Amino acid sequence: KRIVLLPGDGIGKEVMNSAKEVLSAIAEEFNHTFNFETHEIGGAAIDSCGTPLPDSTVEACKLADAVLLGAVGGPKWDQNPSHLRPERGLLGIRKALDLYANLRPIKGFKNLLHASPLKEEVISGSDLLIVRELTGGIYFGTPSERRENGQVVVDTLAYTRHEIERIVDKAFQAAQGRRGRLASVDKANVLESSKLWREVVEEKKSQYPDVAVEHVLVDAAAMKLITNPTHFDVIVTENMFGDILSDEASVLTGSLGMLPSASLNESGVGLYEPVHGSAPDIAGKGIANPLAMILSAALMLRYSFELNNEANLIEDAVQAILDSGFHTGDLKVENGRKVGTEEMTRLVVDYIK
Amino acid sequence: KRIVLLPGDGIGKEVMNSAKEVLSAIAEEFNHTFNFETHEIGGAAIDSCGTPLPDSTVEACKLADAVLLGAVGGPKWDQNPSHLRPERGLLGIRKALDLYANLRPIKGFKNLLHASPLKEEVISGSDLLIVRELTGGIYFGTPSERRENGQVVVDTLAYTRHEIERIVDKAFQAAQGRRGRLASVDKANVLESSKLWREVVEEKKSQYPDVAVEHVLVDAAAMKLITNPTHFDVIVTENMFGDILSDEASVLTGSLGMLPSASLNESGVGLYEPVHGSAPDIAGKGIANPLAMILSAALMLRYSFELNNEANLIEDAVQAILDSGFHTGDLKVENGRKVGTEEMTRLVVDYIK
Ligand SMILES: CC(C)[C@H](C(=O)O)[C@@H](O)C(=O)O
Ligand SMILES: CC(C)[C@H](C(=O)O)[C@@H](O)C(=O)O
Repeated sequence: KRIVLLPGDGIGKEVMNSAKEVLSAIAEEFNHTFNFETHEIGGAAIDSCGTPLPDSTVEACKLADAVLLGAVGGPKWDQNPSHLRPERGLLGIRKALDLYANLRPIKGFKNLLHASPLKEEVISGSDLLIVRELTGGIYFGTPSERRENGQVVVDTLAYTRHEIERIVDKAFQAAQGRRGRLASVDKANVLESSKLWREVVEEKKSQYPDVAVEHVLVDAAAMKLITNPTHFDVIVTENMFGDILSDEASVLTGSLGMLPSASLNESGVGLYEPVHGSAPDIAGKGIANPLAMILSAALMLRYSFELNNEANLIEDAVQAILDSGFHTGDLKVENGRKVGTEEMTRLVVDYIK
Repeated sequence: KRIVLLPGDGIGKEVMNSAKEVLSAIAEEFNHTFNFETHEIGGAAIDSCGTPLPDSTVEACKLADAVLLGAVGGPKWDQNPSHLRPERGLLGIRKALDLYANLRPIKGFKNLLHASPLKEEVISGSDLLIVRELTGGIYFGTPSERRENGQVVVDTLAYTRHEIERIVDKAFQAAQGRRGRLASVDKANVLESSKLWREVVEEKKSQYPDVAVEHVLVDAAAMKLITNPTHFDVIVTENMFGDILSDEASVLTGSLGMLPSASLNESGVGLYEPVHGSAPDIAGKGIANPLAMILSAALMLRYSFELNNEANLIEDAVQAILDSGFHTGDLKVENGRKVGTEEMTRLVVDYIK
C-alpha cells in the first residue's frame, strides 16, 4: 500500500512521525507492506515551494492508496494574502481528490470525561458521528467576489443534486453500521439549498428502512448538541454547517486532542487527519499528543484498506494506555503519569507488538 | 407611546398578556401613557388572513414606537409551502422595518445556573451580548433558486459595505457600554464576505480606542463558547453565524426561558421578543414562563424609550422573585415554589407597585 504523508506545520510533523511508527509496527506484526512517501503542504510548502499546495503533492496524493495529514497553519503565515495561506492547501487537496465525505466520530473516553466542560450526566454515554459534506456549498461556490468598487460582496452556496445525494447516501450507510439513527441538519425554513437537501433525504429514506431519520434545523442542532448530546447517532449536514457543528461537538467530550477524522472520495481513497490544529505554541517541544493522529491512521486502515483487526488493535492500544493512567500534557488525569510524544508513541507500539 | 403587540402563536399569546400587564403597571407607577394595539402575525395570521404577515400588521408596526412579539410557529403550519409558513412573517417584519441589529444579552441567573448543561465552574460569571446582523447575508441574498431542472441549487450570501458598517458600529458602541471587549466572528479563511467584514472591523477600531477587538473564526467561536464562555463580552457576527451561535449560547446558562432579545433599526424603533419559541406542547395551559417576554419589554423601555429606571425596576423584580424561590415549570429550583404564568406575572406587577 502506498501512503502519502503530509506532515504540514507545527506539531503536524511530530505527530506524523508517531503515526508512521505505529503503522510500521502494524505492518510488521500483520505482514503488510506500507510504502511511505512524504510531501509538503501548508506553511511548510509555502516556505519551500511558494505555494501551499505544490503540484507534486497533488500528483503524489492522486497515486496514493491513502493520505495522512498532520496539520496546517501558524502565525508565520497569518498575514499572507489568501492564496498564500496554509489552509488553502487543505481546501485544495480536498477538492483535488474530491474528498466529499468528512467523517468525524466523537466518543468520549471514560477516564477523560471529567475534563469535559459539560456535566458528566449530560455528556456520559454520548457517541456520535458527524458526516460533513466537504467539497461543495459556500466553500467553493462562485461567484465569490467584491462588486461595485468593493461596496458589495457576495459568496455563493451551491450544490448539485448529485453532491447532496452521495453524502446523504454515505450518512445513511454509516447509520446502518451504527445505531440506525440519522439527523439531517439544514436551514430549510430559510435556504433554498436546504429545501433540496431535505427533499433528497426524504427521497432516500425508503431505501434505508432500517434507519430512523429526523430533520433538525441548524440552530436547534447547535443547542441540542449541548443540552442532549446522547440524542444523536449520525448527523449529516452541508459543508459550512458541518464545519461549525463538528467543531462545536469536538469540545464536548473534553478531549479534542484525541479526535481523528476521515475524508473520503467515491473510490474510497481517503485523507485522514486529527481534528486538532497545528498548535504552534507547543510545536517542537516533544509534548504534543499523537493519539488523534494515530487514531486517524486507524481510521485509514479501516476505511481505505478494510483492515479492521489492525484498526481495532490500535484503538484497543489507546484505550488500554489511557486506562493505565498514561496521558500527554493536554489531558488531565488524576494520579496519572504524564508522558511526551515519543513515550506515548512507544506505548502504542509496545502494545501492538 | 404607541406599542404594537404581535402575540403570534402558541404561548406567544399568554406571555404577551403578561408583558402588557407589567407595562401597564410601569405606566401607572411612572405616569407614562402606553397605547397598545394588537395585530396578527405567523400562524394566527395565516389562519385569519391567509398570509403570515398581513399588510395591516406591517403598516401598524411602521407607525409604532416599538413592537413586542410573542412567538410564531406550530405543527399546524409545518407542512405549508414556504411562503405560507409562520416564520416568513418574522423574516418579513424584520426586513420591512429594517431591523438590522439583533441584540441578545445572555447572562445566567445565579440560582438557575445549576440547570446549565455546563459545569458550574465553566459557566459561572459569564455575561455576554451577541450582536447579530439580521437583515442581510444568506437570509435575503438573491439568487436563491433551483436551476437546470432542479439539478442545481444556489443561495447567495450578500452584504453591502454599509450593512456591515452599521452593525459593526452598533457592536462597538455596545462594547463601550459594557466591558470594552469585542469579538468579531467570521470565516475569513474561506469567505470573501468575511474578508470584507474583517476589513470593516479593522477600519472602525481606531474610532473606538477604548474597545479591545479580536477576530475569531466561526468554528473556533462555536468551541470557545462552550469551553470558555466567560472569555466573551460582545460578539458581533453576520446573520447565519449569528443564528447558530446565539442559539448555541442561549442554552449555556440553563435558562432559555429567561432570555429576551431586541431587534433595532437605524431610527431606534425596535422589535422585542423572547428567544424561546411558541412551545405548542404547553400552549393554553397557563404554565408558560412569561419572564423572557417581560424582560423583552424591559429591553424595549431601555433601548427604544430610554426609560432606564423603569427597565431596571423590571429586571430587579425578576431577580428578586427568583431569589425568593418562585419559578415556572421550565425552571427547576430546589425548595422553590412553582407558579403558573398568571401568578408569575402578578409577582412582577406587585413588586413594581
Ligand atoms: C482551515 C479551514 C479552511 C477548515 C474548514 O473550514 O473546512 C477547518 O476549519 C476544518 O474544519 O477542517
Ligand atoms: C425562524 C427563523 C427563520 C429565525 C432565524 O433563523 O432567524 C429564528 O431561528 C431566529 O433566530 O429568530
